[in-house]
Amino acid sequence: MTRTLTLPPALTQVRVHDAFWSPRLEANRACTLPVLHGKLQEVGALDAFDLDAYAERGITIPKTHHVTPQMWWDSDVAKWIEAASASLVTHPDPALDAQLDDVIARIAGAQQPDGYMNTYFTAIEPDRKLTNERDWHELYNAGHLIEAAVTHYQATGKTSLLDVVERYARFLSGVYGTGQGQRPGYPGHEEIELALLRLYHATGRREHLDFARYFIDQRGQFPNYFETEALARGDNPQDFWAGTYEYMQAHQPVREQSQVVGHAVRAVYLYAAMADLAAADGDAGLRAACERLWDDLTRHSLYVTGGLGPSASNEGMTRPYDLPNDSAYAETCAAVGLAFWARRMAALTGDAKYADVMERALYNNVLSGVSLAGDRFLYENPLESDGTHRRWAWHACPCCPPNLARLLASLGEYVYAVSAQDVTVNLYVGSTLSADVAGHALTLTQEGAYPWRGDVHFSMELDSPATFALRLRIPAWAQGATLSVNGEAQAVTPQQGYAVLTREWHSGDRIDLTLPLVPRRVYAHPAVPQDAGLVSLAYGPLVYCVEGVDQDAALHALSVPRGAALSARFDPDLLGGVTVIEGDAVADTATTADLYTDVPPPTRPARVTAIPYAVWDNREPTPMRVWLRESAR
Amino acid sequence: MTRTLTLPPALTQVRVHDAFWSPRLEANRACTLPVLHGKLQEVGALDAFDLDAYAERGITIPKTHHVTPQMWWDSDVAKWIEAASASLVTHPDPALDAQLDDVIARIAGAQQPDGYMNTYFTAIEPDRKLTNERDWHELYNAGHLIEAAVTHYQATGKTSLLDVVERYARFLSGVYGTGQGQRPGYPGHEEIELALLRLYHATGRREHLDFARYFIDQRGQFPNYFETEALARGDNPQDFWAGTYEYMQAHQPVREQSQVVGHAVRAVYLYAAMADLAAADGDAGLRAACERLWDDLTRHSLYVTGGLGPSASNEGMTRPYDLPNDSAYAETCAAVGLAFWARRMAALTGDAKYADVMERALYNNVLSGVSLAGDRFLYENPLESDGTHRRWAWHACPCCPPNLARLLASLGEYVYAVSAQDVTVNLYVGSTLSADVAGHALTLTQEGAYPWRGDVHFSMELDSPATFALRLRIPAWAQGATLSVNGEAQAVTPQQGYAVLTREWHSGDRIDLTLPLVPRRVYAHPAVPQDAGLVSLAYGPLVYCVEGVDQDAALHALSVPRGAALSARFDPDLLGGVTVIEGDAVADTATTADLYTDVPPPTRPARVTAIPYAVWDNREPTPMRVWLRESAR
Repeated sequence: MTRTLTLPPALTQVRVHDAFWSPRLEANRACTLPVLHGKLQEVGALDAFDLDAYAERGITIPKTHHVTPQMWWDSDVAKWIEAASASLVTHPDPALDAQLDDVIARIAGAQQPDGYMNTYFTAIEPDRKLTNERDWHELYNAGHLIEAAVTHYQATGKTSLLDVVERYARFLSGVYGTGQGQRPGYPGHEEIELALLRLYHATGRREHLDFARYFIDQRGQFPNYFETEALARGDNPQDFWAGTYEYMQAHQPVREQSQVVGHAVRAVYLYAAMADLAAADGDAGLRAACERLWDDLTRHSLYVTGGLGPSASNEGMTRPYDLPNDSAYAETCAAVGLAFWARRMAALTGDAKYADVMERALYNNVLSGVSLAGDRFLYENPLESDGTHRRWAWHACPCCPPNLARLLASLGEYVYAVSAQDVTVNLYVGSTLSADVAGHALTLTQEGAYPWRGDVHFSMELDSPATFALRLRIPAWAQGATLSVNGEAQAVTPQQGYAVLTREWHSGDRIDLTLPLVPRRVYAHPAVPQDAGLVSLAYGPLVYCVEGVDQDAALHALSVPRGAALSARFDPDLLGGVTVIEGDAVADTATTADLYTDVPPPTRPARVTAIPYAVWDNREPTPMRVWLRESAR
Repeated sequence: MTRTLTLPPALTQVRVHDAFWSPRLEANRACTLPVLHGKLQEVGALDAFDLDAYAERGITIPKTHHVTPQMWWDSDVAKWIEAASASLVTHPDPALDAQLDDVIARIAGAQQPDGYMNTYFTAIEPDRKLTNERDWHELYNAGHLIEAAVTHYQATGKTSLLDVVERYARFLSGVYGTGQGQRPGYPGHEEIELALLRLYHATGRREHLDFARYFIDQRGQFPNYFETEALARGDNPQDFWAGTYEYMQAHQPVREQSQVVGHAVRAVYLYAAMADLAAADGDAGLRAACERLWDDLTRHSLYVTGGLGPSASNEGMTRPYDLPNDSAYAETCAAVGLAFWARRMAALTGDAKYADVMERALYNNVLSGVSLAGDRFLYENPLESDGTHRRWAWHACPCCPPNLARLLASLGEYVYAVSAQDVTVNLYVGSTLSADVAGHALTLTQEGAYPWRGDVHFSMELDSPATFALRLRIPAWAQGATLSVNGEAQAVTPQQGYAVLTREWHSGDRIDLTLPLVPRRVYAHPAVPQDAGLVSLAYGPLVYCVEGVDQDAALHALSVPRGAALSARFDPDLLGGVTVIEGDAVADTATTADLYTDVPPPTRPARVTAIPYAVWDNREPTPMRVWLRESAR
C-alpha cells in the first residue's frame, strides 16, 4: 500500500486547552502580537508598503552597510500576519481581522504591475532589484509573504493575500529557472522553498511544488550562481564576505550534502523544504539526504536544549561536538526552524525520533526565546550565563520574535499529524482535534498536565464506528510507559517510537497513557569538550538549569554527586507554576584568601534547585547554567 | 638604620651561564635580535628617523584609524636598541655596536631644535604634535627612547643617546607641569615614569626623578587632563572610545587606587614606576598604594602562569576571579611589565613574595612569548588552546617581541639585587655577580641545574674578608629547603621569605642550598569560575601544561585522580631538554554514538604527560591545557 501523505491538521482543526501551553499562547496573542505590531509600526516596516512615501522618506542607515534591516522588513510584517491570522482561529477578533485586511490591502497596493513586490527594492534601490540574491533577501521575503498568505487563507478563508503571492510566485518562476532567458538562481537565505510547498499543499497547484523543486535542485550546482551573479554585478566573487558558500548550503548540490554547515536558520529552512518535497514526491534521494543531515545534526551538533548553531560569527555551525555553553549562539529562529524540519521528517518517515527532537526544541530552546509575559525576547539562547545575558525588548534584526509568535499561534500543527488512515499524536498538549479519518468525522480530546504529570487521557467522538490507527509517541526518555483503552491495559511495544492502536473505534472510547516522569541525569558524548565532567538534569521533555538566585553557592562551585537522589516538586507559585528538581549537592569552599594553593578545596554540603530552561531569566539578573559539575560522591 | 637603596646590579656586573637560560639568551641574541632589526627595517621604522624622506613617503594606512602602528615605531626601535645594547655586554660585537651607533646617529639627527623628537608627529602629522596624549603614545615613545639611552649607556659607556634623551626630557618637562604656561598632562600609556627613574638612577640627576614624580602625582587629578585635552582639540570627551579612564589608570589619583584596572601593560608600567619612586623617596603613601594594588592583583586576577589581563577588548582587567583560560589575553608585555614591577617591589620591601611572582612570570608567561628558536612570538598567552593559537612571525602591534628581547638580554638584573650592606639572590640562575658590597669587591658564582634540579651552589671570591648579609630567596613552594655554608648545615628560618646569612665572608666560602623539587598540584581559589574542579601541575617555578601530541586521549576527556602519584623525569631529547611530569590518569570513553545519554561516561586508565608551559607550541599544532580535570579517584 502506498502510504498517503501525512500532513499537519489545518489550523481550524485543533483547539489547545493546556495548563502548560495556554498561558504562553495567551501571552503570545494578548502581548506579543500587539508588541510586534507596535514595533513594525515604529520602525516603519508597515508604512514601507506605501511605496511613494517610503521612497521619499528614504532610509537613514548608511548604504555602505552590507545589508540593512529594511531589506527584511517585508518578512517581519509577513511573520506578524501569520501569527495574527493564526490567532484569529482560536480568538475571533474583528479589530485584528480588519487590521490584517488593511495591511494586506497595502501589500497588494505595493505589488508591481509585473507581479514583483519588495518594498526596499522598489522604493529605495530599484536599480539593484534582483541583482544580489546571495545577500539581499528578496526571495526570503517572498517566502515569508507566501507563508503569510497561506496561513491567512487557512485561518480566514480569504484569498486576498493568496492571490497576491501567487502572482508574485509566477513572476519569480518566470525570472528563475534553467530555461531560455531565465536566471539559474536561488535564494541566499532559504525560505521560499518551504513556503512554495505550503502554497502547493494549500492550493493543490503543482506549479508551486515544481518551482520549489527547481530551487532545491538548482542549489549548489556548478557554476555557482552566486559567482555568476557577482560577476554580473561587477563584483569579484572572491570578495564574498562569508568566505564560503557553505554559509548558505550552496557549496554542493543538496542531494550530495551530508553535513549540516553554515548559517543554522538557513540550513533548517532548506532541510524542512527538502523533507516536505521528499514526502510529496516520494523522492528517495532527497529523503536519504535529509536522513544523513539529520543524523549529522543530532549526533554531532545539537544542543541538549534543541538549539543549534554554536557560533555568532556565521550564526551557525562550526565543528562536530563543538557545543560551547556560555557563548552558544543557538538562535531562537534556528530552533523554530528545527521544529519545522522535525515535523516534516516525522511525517515523511513515520518515525518518532524526529518528534522527540521537535519536542526537545519546542519545550526548551524555542520557549526560552520569549519571556513569560510575552514582551521580551532572546535571539541567542546560551546554556550558561554570568547574569548579563538578558532578554531584550527589541533587536536590530527582529527575526526571532515574530517567528516564535507564528509558531506558538499554530502550535496545534505540531501536536497532531493526520493521514487518510491514521492519527498521530506527537505532543502531549491538552487539546481537541477535529479531523476526517478513514472517512469519518473524529473529535479527539486530549487532557493531562504534561509535562508536570505523565498521565495523559484521550477521549473520542465519532459520527459512527471507524477503523483507523491511533499513533501515540512514546518519547525515548520514557521508560516503562503504560497504556490502556477503556481501562483495559495494552502492551506498549512501540513501532518506530509510536504505540500504535489500530482497532474499530467508537464514540466514548477512552485511552489512558502514562509516561513515567522522574528527574533524569543527561550526559553529553565524551567528545564534547565543553560538557566534559558535567551533567544536565531533565524531567520529561524539559531540560533544566540552575539560576544563581535559587542556590546557596556560586554555580561553578556546585557539584551534584553522581549518586545523590533528585526529587521533583511542583511549585505553583514559581514562574507561573513549574516543577523544580531538587537534590543534595556539594559546594567548594575556600581555605585561604590566596588565589593559588596546594590544598584542594574542601566541599561543604549544599542543595541544588533547578528550574526548566524554558523559563530562565524571568526574574532578576542572575547567573545560569544548564551543565553542572558532577562529583563522584 | 635607614636602609640604603636596593638596586639591580649593572648589566656589566652579571654574567649568566645557565643550562636553562643560556640557550634562550643565545637564541635571543643570535636569532631574535636580527629578526627584530630586519622587521624594523622592513616596516620602515628605522628609516622613519630620516624625517624628510619619511614625510615624503607618508604612510599608507588610512588616517581615519584611531591610531596607526607608525605612532609607536619609535618605541619599537628603542626596545631593539635596549636589547642589542645589553647583548653587547656579554657578546662584544663590533658590527652590532656600529649598527647601534648608526641608528642612534639617525635618532639624534631627527631631534628637533627644541629637543622634541617623534618621527610620526614630526614627519607625518606635525599639526597634531602633543595634542592627544590620551591616545597617541608620544610620551610612551619618549619613555622607551629614554630606557634605550640608559641601557646603551650602561652597556657601552657611550652617552650619544643619553644626551639626546636628556634634552628631550628637558623639553618635555618644560611642556608638562603645573607651572604657569605648562600643561598639566601625563601619558595615556604609562612608561616614561619608570624610564625617567632609570634615567635618574643612571645619571644621579634629581630633575628626572622630579619629573617622574610629577607624572605620577598628576595622574587622575581632577579635572581629568584627557578631558581638558579633548576639549582643546575640539573633541567631545564623552566620545572616548575606551569609555573610561580606568583604561589607563587615570580615573583617580594613583595614591588612592586600590584595584588593578584597565589596560594591563599600562598598569604594571605605572606601578613599577610608583614602586621605584617610593623606594627612592621613602614615600610611604606611594608604597602603601603599591602594596594594595599588588594584593589586589595577586589575590584576584593573576593567572597561575604569571599572566594578567584576561580580556582582549581592553587588553586588560575585568572582574576579580575572572580568569578565562582559552580566551586569556595575558599579553606577553604585561608579564614582562609585571617582572619590572615585582623586581622593584622586592627591592622596595625586601620581601621575597614579590620575587616569587617575578619568578612565576619569567619562567612561564614571559618565556612562552617566544619560540625556543627565537623566531616566533606570542602576543596573547592563553592557558588553553584547541591547537589553532600559534606563535606568529610578526604582528601589527609588535610590542611584545622587543620587550621580551630586552628583558632576556638583561636577565642578570633580575637574578640579584645589591645594596650597600647585602646581596640578594632572587633567582636561581647559573651566573657570576661582580659587585661592591660593604666596601669590598665580591665575586659570587652561582651554579646548579635549576629548575630541573633543586641543588644550587654558590662560591665567593672577596678581595678581603667582609661582613655582609647574603639573602637567599626560599620560594613559597619550597617545603623543607636545606642550606649549608662550607658544609655546615644552617637553619632555614626565612625572614620575609629570604634565608639571611650574615657573617664575615671569606674568599672560597661555599654555600649549598637545596630546594626540594617535586611535582605539585596547584588549585585555584574556588571563586575562580573557570578553574572549578580543575588542577594544575607545577614543578618548582614552572607551571605545566599538557599538549595533545603527548597524550593518548583528548585533553578534555582526561582526569587526574586526586590521589594518583606524579613523577618527574628529565627528557634530554624533548624540547631542548625538559623535565616532564607523568602520572596515571583516566579518560572518559563513549558507550554510544548518541550525542546525549542517561549513562555517565565510563573511564578507562590513561596516562598524562605534562611539559612546562614555557615551551608549549614548539612542535606541531596540537591542543593544550594548563588546568586539568581532577577526579576523586
